[in-house]
Amino acid sequence: MFFRLAKIIKNFTLNNSKKNLNGVVPIKDQCYKELEITYDWYREKPLNILTQKKKGGPIDVYKEFKGDGRVVRVGLEFETGNISSAHRSMNKLLLGMNHQELELGVILMPVYALSYYLTDRVSNYEELEPYFELAEYTPFIFIGFNANQFDPSVEAIPKGKDGMSKRSIKKMDGKIIIKPPHSFHHGDN
Amino acid sequence: MFFRLAKIIKNFTLNNSKKNLNGVVPIKDQCYKELEITYDWYREKPLNILTQKKKGGPIDVYKEFKGDGRVVRVGLEFETGNISSAHRSMNKLLLGMNHQELELGVILMPVYALSYYLTDRVSNYEELEPYFELAEYTPFIFIGFNANQFDPSVEAIPKGKDGMSKRSIKKMDGKIIIKPPHSFHHGDN
Repeated sequence: MFFRLAKIIKNFTLNNSKKNLNGVVPIKDQCYKELEITYDWYREKPLNILTQKKKGGPIDVYKEFKGDGRVVRVGLEFETGNISSAHRSMNKLLLGMNHQELELGVILMPVYALSYYLTDRVSNYEELEPYFELAEYTPFIFIGFNANQFDPSVEAIPKGKDGMSKRSIKKMDGKIIIKPPHSFHHGDN
Repeated sequence: MFFRLAKIIKNFTLNNSKKNLNGVVPIKDQCYKELEITYDWYREKPLNILTQKKKGGPIDVYKEFKGDGRVVRVGLEFETGNISSAHRSMNKLLLGMNHQELELGVILMPVYALSYYLTDRVSNYEELEPYFELAEYTPFIFIGFNANQFDPSVEAIPKGKDGMSKRSIKKMDGKIIIKPPHSFHHGDN
């Protein structure tokens, strides 16, 4: 799985001409699209524990890896909110594992060096790092990623809805739904 | 301790004439003031684990209870941000206990029935409740509070900085500092 995730965000060149210049949601969207189309992940997996209590949204992307007569259910969140939002993503994945709805949680975050050029206050790997130990006894992977190159002459990544188009997403229950472009709110997205 | 905390937020009448009418920061500020002045709590206790890593702010209020030859260090956060922010507060207190810097963590939150009349998207007790189990093996108290009465004729609580004045706060290291009025940001306050 991990080589493949690494491949998705390979050859990524970012415009570094100005702090906070680039949007981050299009990066996430590209990653999720690739996971869905190429690697057969599903979108928006609800956790029973949260559905029952009518609280909280689904896990962003999800896959059931099958083999050796067992299933390993993996939930992944690509974090594009502020640091508080990253805490919520982590806790949601921990909750899923606590309730035997997931066997592995994965959080993808930009490293500080990258986040510097992304939307203001987007959280970074180093910011959440002191808290990784709260997941110490749970199968959890925190992935920090960077751009491969920085180049002030490449096109900047648009922020918010700019440059995004409606697209269909594939959900676990077989439904294909048309997803409107992400809107980007700090702190709750 | 708990009767006293209860007393602080007693006889609390809220204007319920409109959804999201009232501010929440002045309620928190009143509570912290009372804890400092009447009950000898301290403000803004840094955690060593976060100071070392230069990440994250201090615990909002803190007290060392002494007796029977031992010290019980209690950290408390009155949550006035959105649900993500509540996750961060919880995780910060858990981290403090993990590192033997606190023996008890306390989170104070409005219950849903109250939050309905407070600033939009302020988190409530019920919203965080599915996640309480992540603190299961740690000494942790979640307190949900409500108003004692609702009355559409009382004055509404101002939002943001309105109606707040600069005041001094008492810190553990003996410093008295002048605290500017809280500004209220969703998601990160």
